[in-house]
Amino acid sequence: MDLVVNNGKVVTPQGVFQANIGIEGEKIATISKSPLKGDEVIDVSGKLVMPGVIDPHVHMELPFGGTVSADDFKTGTIAGAFGGVTTIIDFAIQPKGESPFSAIEARKKAAEGKVVVDFALHASLTDMEKVEDGDIRKIIEMGLPSFKLFMTYRKEGLMVDDGTLFALLQETASLKGLVGVHAENAAVLEYLIAKFLREGKTEPKYHALSRPNFVEGECINRAITLTEEANSSLYIFHMSTKEGLEAVKSAKTRGVKVLAETCPHYLMLTDEKYEENGQLYVMSPPLRKREDNEALWQGVVNGWIDVVSTDHCPFRTDQKAMGDTFDKIPNGVPGIETLLPVMFSEGLKRGMPLERLVEVLSYNPARIFGLENKGAIEVGKDADLVILDPREERTLSYETLHMNLDYSIFEGLKVKGYPVTTISRGEVIVDNNEFYGKEGRGRFIERVSGGW
Amino acid sequence: MDLVVNNGKVVTPQGVFQANIGIEGEKIATISKSPLKGDEVIDVSGKLVMPGVIDPHVHMELPFGGTVSADDFKTGTIAGAFGGVTTIIDFAIQPKGESPFSAIEARKKAAEGKVVVDFALHASLTDMEKVEDGDIRKIIEMGLPSFKLFMTYRKEGLMVDDGTLFALLQETASLKGLVGVHAENAAVLEYLIAKFLREGKTEPKYHALSRPNFVEGECINRAITLTEEANSSLYIFHMSTKEGLEAVKSAKTRGVKVLAETCPHYLMLTDEKYEENGQLYVMSPPLRKREDNEALWQGVVNGWIDVVSTDHCPFRTDQKAMGDTFDKIPNGVPGIETLLPVMFSEGLKRGMPLERLVEVLSYNPARIFGLENKGAIEVGKDADLVILDPREERTLSYETLHMNLDYSIFEGLKVKGYPVTTISRGEVIVDNNEFYGKEGRGRFIERVSGGW
Amino acid sequence: MDLVVNNGKVVTPQGVFQANIGIEGEKIATISKSPLKGDEVIDVSGKLVMPGVIDPHVHMELPFGGTVSADDFKTGTIAGAFGGVTTIIDFAIQPKGESPFSAIEARKKAAEGKVVVDFALHASLTDMEKVEDGDIRKIIEMGLPSFKLFMTYRKEGLMVDDGTLFALLQETASLKGLVGVHAENAAVLEYLIAKFLREGKTEPKYHALSRPNFVEGECINRAITLTEEANSSLYIFHMSTKEGLEAVKSAKTRGVKVLAETCPHYLMLTDEKYEENGQLYVMSPPLRKREDNEALWQGVVNGWIDVVSTDHCPFRTDQKAMGDTFDKIPNGVPGIETLLPVMFSEGLKRGMPLERLVEVLSYNPARIFGLENKGAIEVGKDADLVILDPREERTLSYETLHMNLDYSIFEGLKVKGYPVTTISRGEVIVDNNEFYGKEGRGRFIERVSGGW
Amino acid sequence: MDLVVNNGKVVTPQGVFQANIGIEGEKIATISKSPLKGDEVIDVSGKLVMPGVIDPHVHMELPFGGTVSADDFKTGTIAGAFGGVTTIIDFAIQPKGESPFSAIEARKKAAEGKVVVDFALHASLTDMEKVEDGDIRKIIEMGLPSFKLFMTYRKEGLMVDDGTLFALLQETASLKGLVGVHAENAAVLEYLIAKFLREGKTEPKYHALSRPNFVEGECINRAITLTEEANSSLYIFHMSTKEGLEAVKSAKTRGVKVLAETCPHYLMLTDEKYEENGQLYVMSPPLRKREDNEALWQGVVNGWIDVVSTDHCPFRTDQKAMGDTFDKIPNGVPGIETLLPVMFSEGLKRGMPLERLVEVLSYNPARIFGLENKGAIEVGKDADLVILDPREERTLSYETLHMNLDYSIFEGLKVKGYPVTTISRGEVIVDNNEFYGKEGRGRFIERVSGGW
Repeated sequence: MDLVVNNGKVVTPQGVFQANIGIEGEKIATISKSPLKGDEVIDVSGKLVMPGVIDPHVHMELPFGGTVSADDFKTGTIAGAFGGVTTIIDFAIQPKGESPFSAIEARKKAAEGKVVVDFALHASLTDMEKVEDGDIRKIIEMGLPSFKLFMTYRKEGLMVDDGTLFALLQETASLKGLVGVHAENAAVLEYLIAKFLREGKTEPKYHALSRPNFVEGECINRAITLTEEANSSLYIFHMSTKEGLEAVKSAKTRGVKVLAETCPHYLMLTDEKYEENGQLYVMSPPLRKREDNEALWQGVVNGWIDVVSTDHCPFRTDQKAMGDTFDKIPNGVPGIETLLPVMFSEGLKRGMPLERLVEVLSYNPARIFGLENKGAIEVGKDADLVILDPREERTLSYETLHMNLDYSIFEGLKVKGYPVTTISRGEVIVDNNEFYGKEGRGRFIERVSGGW
Repeated sequence: MDLVVNNGKVVTPQGVFQANIGIEGEKIATISKSPLKGDEVIDVSGKLVMPGVIDPHVHMELPFGGTVSADDFKTGTIAGAFGGVTTIIDFAIQPKGESPFSAIEARKKAAEGKVVVDFALHASLTDMEKVEDGDIRKIIEMGLPSFKLFMTYRKEGLMVDDGTLFALLQETASLKGLVGVHAENAAVLEYLIAKFLREGKTEPKYHALSRPNFVEGECINRAITLTEEANSSLYIFHMSTKEGLEAVKSAKTRGVKVLAETCPHYLMLTDEKYEENGQLYVMSPPLRKREDNEALWQGVVNGWIDVVSTDHCPFRTDQKAMGDTFDKIPNGVPGIETLLPVMFSEGLKRGMPLERLVEVLSYNPARIFGLENKGAIEVGKDADLVILDPREERTLSYETLHMNLDYSIFEGLKVKGYPVTTISRGEVIVDNNEFYGKEGRGRFIERVSGGW
Repeated sequence: MDLVVNNGKVVTPQGVFQANIGIEGEKIATISKSPLKGDEVIDVSGKLVMPGVIDPHVHMELPFGGTVSADDFKTGTIAGAFGGVTTIIDFAIQPKGESPFSAIEARKKAAEGKVVVDFALHASLTDMEKVEDGDIRKIIEMGLPSFKLFMTYRKEGLMVDDGTLFALLQETASLKGLVGVHAENAAVLEYLIAKFLREGKTEPKYHALSRPNFVEGECINRAITLTEEANSSLYIFHMSTKEGLEAVKSAKTRGVKVLAETCPHYLMLTDEKYEENGQLYVMSPPLRKREDNEALWQGVVNGWIDVVSTDHCPFRTDQKAMGDTFDKIPNGVPGIETLLPVMFSEGLKRGMPLERLVEVLSYNPARIFGLENKGAIEVGKDADLVILDPREERTLSYETLHMNLDYSIFEGLKVKGYPVTTISRGEVIVDNNEFYGKEGRGRFIERVSGGW
Repeated sequence: MDLVVNNGKVVTPQGVFQANIGIEGEKIATISKSPLKGDEVIDVSGKLVMPGVIDPHVHMELPFGGTVSADDFKTGTIAGAFGGVTTIIDFAIQPKGESPFSAIEARKKAAEGKVVVDFALHASLTDMEKVEDGDIRKIIEMGLPSFKLFMTYRKEGLMVDDGTLFALLQETASLKGLVGVHAENAAVLEYLIAKFLREGKTEPKYHALSRPNFVEGECINRAITLTEEANSSLYIFHMSTKEGLEAVKSAKTRGVKVLAETCPHYLMLTDEKYEENGQLYVMSPPLRKREDNEALWQGVVNGWIDVVSTDHCPFRTDQKAMGDTFDKIPNGVPGIETLLPVMFSEGLKRGMPLERLVEVLSYNPARIFGLENKGAIEVGKDADLVILDPREERTLSYETLHMNLDYSIFEGLKVKGYPVTTISRGEVIVDNNEFYGKEGRGRFIERVSGGW
């Protein structure tokens, strides 16, 4: 064996069991009851061995509101590696008036040479005038079997209408493609934004007040209805409300293939954050109430929510300060490095089994997005592993985290349990607080299908 | 007494009972167990005495698609009077770029001097840029406490967006106003229309196929969500689908103040009509399936649907022929004269109690739309009555009906039970197949409130 | 006219309007806009004229737990008349091992000669061994088209099992009969009673704790399921919980013919009453929480609950004291005299329209239980009327009430609006705090059908 | 390695992957990408390696209706081994009037020395008078953490009432115990049985007609309500109806811990079987309609139903013939040997993923019933494996099956895919149509907990 991880407690969606893992090249070669021998041996007694985290929702170096998100593909994925992330999925966003293919090529180019873990891309379509017959199939066959449509952001030139969504849902149904949406009712939130601005209400808290829960709930319901009628599948990015969750539960119960994602900030933080330095917490959809947090936690624990991602799209405090009215603040918060520690530590408190943790962080995103060699500790899969020490206690702070930021949304949060070693395709890239990987070592992964 | 109706069976929402009715001037003055004396005495032994029918959804002389609906306020209301209708509510539609008030004045002027029964108007708003602060209150105080918004008809310049609907729902909530909607998802149906046209599918049946059930169902759901959030009331014009009905049932059950209307053609006809001379049956929403008919009948009988109106908006066969592709056919069908005979005869077959019949045709529209002196047989109310002979059998045909049309959607339908005498504010205007009223005798009714 | 009620505001389920009512003999003869002349003229300017209250759930002189309920047919109906009640429905309970007919005869005999208002009887069946083929039809044809089955009270010899309920539902379906139930899960409450007694928990509050909400909710659900399967109708006596209400709403929404009744004590009082002199508030089902009160009020106001009755079954404080453990306390509380004043005064506070008040107190019980000449102010109906002065303020107290009791469950409650005159079949039996009726003047009413 | 299974396709709930399995003693020691060496090597190229099937619902040598079920612990478990079953859970049924412990001891004794695969027992309680304080805990600690209560079979002396169920649900909630139920409304089915017998309707089909769907649906609903109120967990044995499934879906959606089991005969057969030789298909609950089959299949595929067991309780045709009226026929059918072949072959046709197959047949029953060393292919677990050849085609017939029966309910069914080798704790007990195990080699498994 090239690399051996001995004496760990292996965590899979099926259970937690004592085992030793042997790696040859980039792959898991053996899982054994007895300790193994190898060129390199890591003893992880007392620690957990989990599949590497897959963050299927990140925005590295994204232009937004006149600036660019603060982490590039290098800093962002290094930070991710420190947090146990071994695969990311970012977005190739079609510019209005252009073909989607140039954006895909450009985005691959931007990442290659920089990423330190593997990456994939969702194709985000914004202008169907420029999508020709056969393009959808071509995009899927290029390894991008998942799409993102924005049901809002009209002014930003991202929004598509319900007809476009319905048409794409119909087309992907037979192609093993998956449509994902950012679901917020554009016309209602635009009306509320304009109303608040007209009334001189410009502080960050009006960002949240202009996007009340039903703005998301209604839109998720609508997207589900179109999905059901198209006999297709739907992925809901960053669901933030109990109303959205109820719609998802109802849809799943009647057999609609809808998959839902939430993020740690929607589980942990509330709109009270908008009272002070509120701009630092401006993202869309916005933070909600404690009762939404609790409902979403239940959704994660009980299996209604399939994926926890980060929507990592950070801006430094100076960037955040650029918006003098709430509608001008760059949208987004950091998260990639704290995803696993926060979910482990806080999930445990809420009775989330470890089996479920690796499901929402690794197994499900791999399966949903067609990462066929990722997301499981099985012989033959990529040796993407994270070793977590359940006794390690830390206090989260931007000062010790590795994201390119001067604040953290979880500043001061004490967590128990922390990733200590990260292995990507058989290579130890993080160990004992040191990064050992090489810039650009990550690969673009052509995915095989979308859906479940 | 000026006029006396003796020996009838009086029908009210509460029950059916033998009584004699005395009228003084325009009002009901006495309801008595013993026959009454009066200047004019009508003996109606063996017949039913019901409150005059209120049709709250008609479009007389409406410009649409380059032509004008075939009944004007005179021909349409005379035909209505033959069918037992004693009040209509038509629409004052704000032209884009103009104030709503001019449309109201113009519409009143168009009707006055022509209408033979009383009339009122809904205010249809299409351009909120031209609606100033305070205008909504002013419109309500002018006696138009009900509004209509189109959630579709973008190209026709009628459509408003969800932000506008939400804002109006909020504003009317405190003003005793009622918002009604034409609910169809515009973007989806436009996509389907364009797709069919592109594929060369231009026959009338594609009108229905471009507006599948969920196009209405989704939109009704959305409108209900906005209503619930605005803590307001909603009226759904011409609901045609079982999906819409389910949304209404669910909303009513959780206490949302939503009121629903359907029309006889959605109860009686199916999309098989589009196979031959389909253009004659083109209206929006379109005809549906037998299972929708049946669901809607159950909704009417069991009280989930509050009003049956006609959406009377007829075009002659030459007008209907103007559209060479399905999207160009003038939308609308006749109905005002056949509303009561069809609902009486067909309702009876389906076990609808007479109490329920007068509820959906008279009592509910009066109460919902604030016609405080209409819709009930009670002392003090306007003496608007229709005498129906339950033994009278007729075969419906455009040749014997009085609408300005050369076809009927119910051609050949045999009905049992027919209105034989119509009394409007104490005046017999139809009797024994003769019209006795004077052109322009109808009055504009200032209504007091909308809602329930 | 023999008797004339001039200048009142008449309240019907359809509306409230100024009118004058003329009575000839026992019947309403005229409703007129102009004041009428008559042998006896009552001017009721400023007052409301409502149909006499029908209390379809009373237990006069009922043997229970070794004693007898404190009001007999005379004292109970006189008290009722003071409260505007003009009809009661009591119960003929079949003793185990005996035919149901003897109980019917006995109960009629007990009432006749005593009752001062009209009365009817529900047939309560407890022993199907003694009910022969054809008996159900015979009972219905004797004028008792409504039955009551106890799903609890095993030890008391009243309980029947689900098979019996299902069989009776099937049989009545075709006979225009209506089955009503006392719905509490017997086995669960008996288990809890035994458990508490074993633990030495014997105070009155354990009466409520041994019958938690789901004991009723489950049982109502079960009864509804059997009704739906038998394609029959169901009446739920004295529903007390929000869980029961939810079951009823769901059933009505899917079209099951279920009718629900609650009582003022379930609307107004909570289980806090069990803390002091708790035995005075022991009835089955027991008092619940504030949230149940509020849910039930919403159910009454919004039309999900069809009837408000009293379950009048009072015991004096000495009788209540007979039970040294909670399971031995005679079950029941007084209510017949305070039904209308409490519902009027408290209903108004909660936005209940007057139309709805007369629906739940008069129109609905008449229609549901087949009292074809009662429950409406219409020419030809029995002249059963109550005149209520909406300005009259009183503080309820057993000292001034006329029930044969030494306490009131509403002691000290201030009400605004009080019945001042009661007319039964054309005869003024209460006026200005005096009773003028003759003992035994009430008649047994043969009812025509049960259901809706 | 003692035993090696090379070149198989391993099936787990997580996925299907090529791997080689090494066994040492009774345990799985290694899972490896490369072929392994060992004392005994089985090459299973082209075949599937699955965890051994766990049948948690069998009745070997059960006395019923004057006879005894036809398979004893030896014949039944040998037949099971041929079908890939490596663990069974049978029942220790407390006789009325006796302590539950003697039944447990007796049942263990009956099995030991005979069983050829491992076995466990559910404790079936029928008489709480004989269950003392602390007994429940004691039973759980003896390794029987799951209980079965009969909500029907009153005459057979098995039935308990709702109070008993509620009490046991409350007690097990804190003890990691699980309550399972046979859910049929006893009183309704007894009424229907008596009615049919009275009417001379005695053929087998009246067995089904006396237990219509709602008899099960109602009872499942009731059991769920009690579970929810007790904040406990529930296992539903042999669910047969779409109504039951709807209740389970609704319960799971609102977070109630309810687990559901069905059997192949409820998935594959309909009540048409009662037309000819109907007695051979008499079991309780009975066979249903095609629409129930389809609903249950969907429930299995989509994860609403957790376990597929057999309720193996066979009687030979002469035993079945003993009942001259439908209520006297011994209840039960064979199934243990055909469970895996039928579910594999028919599941595939209905799109059931292999991952899901091993979940319902192995992983879920192990987890639900606390068989901590069973149900998964993981290093450290018992080496209970079944090798299935997906190309093997057979026609099922009692003549070639090994159950002690002279008929099969699946006679003539063609299946594709058949178990060819069965390994129990590292020992090959069936291979190539030969049984190699030793009578009595199976062990009693003390289970650790019940629930999920």
